[in-house]
Amino acid sequence: MSLIIIGTVAFDAIETPFGKTDKIVGGAATYASLAASYFYNKVKIIGVIGDDFQQENVDKFTQHGIDTEGLQVKEGEKSFFWSGKYHNDMNSRDTLITELNVLENFDPIIPESYQDCEYLLLGNLTPIVQQTVISRLKNRPKLIVLDTMNFWMDIMMEDLLETIKLVDVLTINDAEARQLSGEYSLVKAAKKILQMGPKYLIIKKGEHGALLFHEDKIFSAPALPLADVFDPTGAGDAFAGGFIGYLAKVGTINFNNMKNAIIYGSALASFCVEQFGTEKILNLKDEEVATRVQEFVNLSSFTIEA
Amino acid sequence: MSLIIIGTVAFDAIETPFGKTDKIVGGAATYASLAASYFYNKVKIIGVIGDDFQQENVDKFTQHGIDTEGLQVKEGEKSFFWSGKYHNDMNSRDTLITELNVLENFDPIIPESYQDCEYLLLGNLTPIVQQTVISRLKNRPKLIVLDTMNFWMDIMMEDLLETIKLVDVLTINDAEARQLSGEYSLVKAAKKILQMGPKYLIIKKGEHGALLFHEDKIFSAPALPLADVFDPTGAGDAFAGGFIGYLAKVGTINFNNMKNAIIYGSALASFCVEQFGTEKILNLKDEEVATRVQEFVNLSSFTIEA
Repeated sequence: MSLIIIGTVAFDAIETPFGKTDKIVGGAATYASLAASYFYNKVKIIGVIGDDFQQENVDKFTQHGIDTEGLQVKEGEKSFFWSGKYHNDMNSRDTLITELNVLENFDPIIPESYQDCEYLLLGNLTPIVQQTVISRLKNRPKLIVLDTMNFWMDIMMEDLLETIKLVDVLTINDAEARQLSGEYSLVKAAKKILQMGPKYLIIKKGEHGALLFHEDKIFSAPALPLADVFDPTGAGDAFAGGFIGYLAKVGTINFNNMKNAIIYGSALASFCVEQFGTEKILNLKDEEVATRVQEFVNLSSFTIEA
Repeated sequence: MSLIIIGTVAFDAIETPFGKTDKIVGGAATYASLAASYFYNKVKIIGVIGDDFQQENVDKFTQHGIDTEGLQVKEGEKSFFWSGKYHNDMNSRDTLITELNVLENFDPIIPESYQDCEYLLLGNLTPIVQQTVISRLKNRPKLIVLDTMNFWMDIMMEDLLETIKLVDVLTINDAEARQLSGEYSLVKAAKKILQMGPKYLIIKKGEHGALLFHEDKIFSAPALPLADVFDPTGAGDAFAGGFIGYLAKVGTINFNNMKNAIIYGSALASFCVEQFGTEKILNLKDEEVATRVQEFVNLSSFTIEA
């Protein structure tokens, strides 16, 4: 039994009001698999890199117990590269450079050893590649989580809708939920989206937390108010990875476990933004994660006496 | 012992994507006192109206057990009038008309029977009038809550800072917290504001809930996701009124009671926006309030097993 995470493994160059990086390791599958590795020890990654992606970077996955057999290396090609600059409010950013490189013809090959997949996280990628992964698994996983973004809604909504039909959980942000549903009210948006296929919808609201919708139930998760957000890159991916990693660990899919999974995902996302790139989530101790989760409990608990 | 609420008692004409009203009863003290009346039966109002404010409207306060002895009537003058139009997202609005009228020379006279004041809510008004009320009370109330807005920060920051020094709890929204402190991070903003006088700071985030700061503690309260927001007018005032009304009822000021007070305030605010003006909060049943509060509990509770 395993948790497969597919997504980009890439280089990013990031500028925020706090500083600027050269090319550092990034990508949705990178953040998500590192986050998941704190909860589950059978994380397997699917992605593609060029020969510019140094072995020492691949080793960081292995050191976290992440299986990299599904990480294709394209000789003579370059890894996906993204460069962006965050504005002062850290909620908006400009993309400066996008070089698809190896991603242009990415064919997600699933190693035979990955066919025991029970949990599948489809990290942000073209919806067609995401669909291909599902179709190449011999058995449908117990839980499929799909992360996507407005970019795919803009240019290939039809394909995205086909992919959304196939999954159990969809994670998007509030603006994307509005775009996907055509409804401004998130309650109405969720109602429509839950008719598109997924049984669970997570709406990420950044510094305002997240909402989980399932049937007629709603859970509102807080975000940890932070004094400093150094770099928001990868926060959504770390959230998704922590989320599915926790569910893979507990092994039972229900609303209560989903709620806790959102708290664990949020905890990993809160670490992620405290330093540039993957720096913080590469080196967490289990006690730090437990302490952070307890902060979420303290932050949001109250007792109303009837 | 009593709860005094000072603020505007006024007429509003409101336009939202859902409809348009003629002149209807509004004003900070109106919303706040109605909200407080669901929890506490010794609510006393201070405000000023013109002779255009019909007796039947004053009667609505009395029917809610609200003492109107401090509501001055200026013969031959007109009540404060505000007209505004909300944009499609309901989060921003344009002010179309502001007629100060009776508010221009408002001298808040405190009836002798109000001198038993234990809880004081200074609703949104000029900081000087707010200060005058404090100075005219023979004994300092046990708890003073101040609500204000960016308008006063723009035109009379010095006076506002003097007033803020005198209070226990300050309620403002996130943009106002940033403006008041000069800090973008709400954690840093709160730290600065808690050095300006108040022991408690509540940052209201509308559809994203509210944050309570006290010493090094933070509480994050959810907002109830609503399918339809008809009219946001008065939501912040209903929040403040429900908040202090609940505290007056329980009678003990501590962080835990403050947390619950925020939930009760949020519940009243959530009712407020469901209909135009005061329509909804004029006619609530106690069971409805209890059910709504339970919805907040269900919305945000989770159990992490250690």
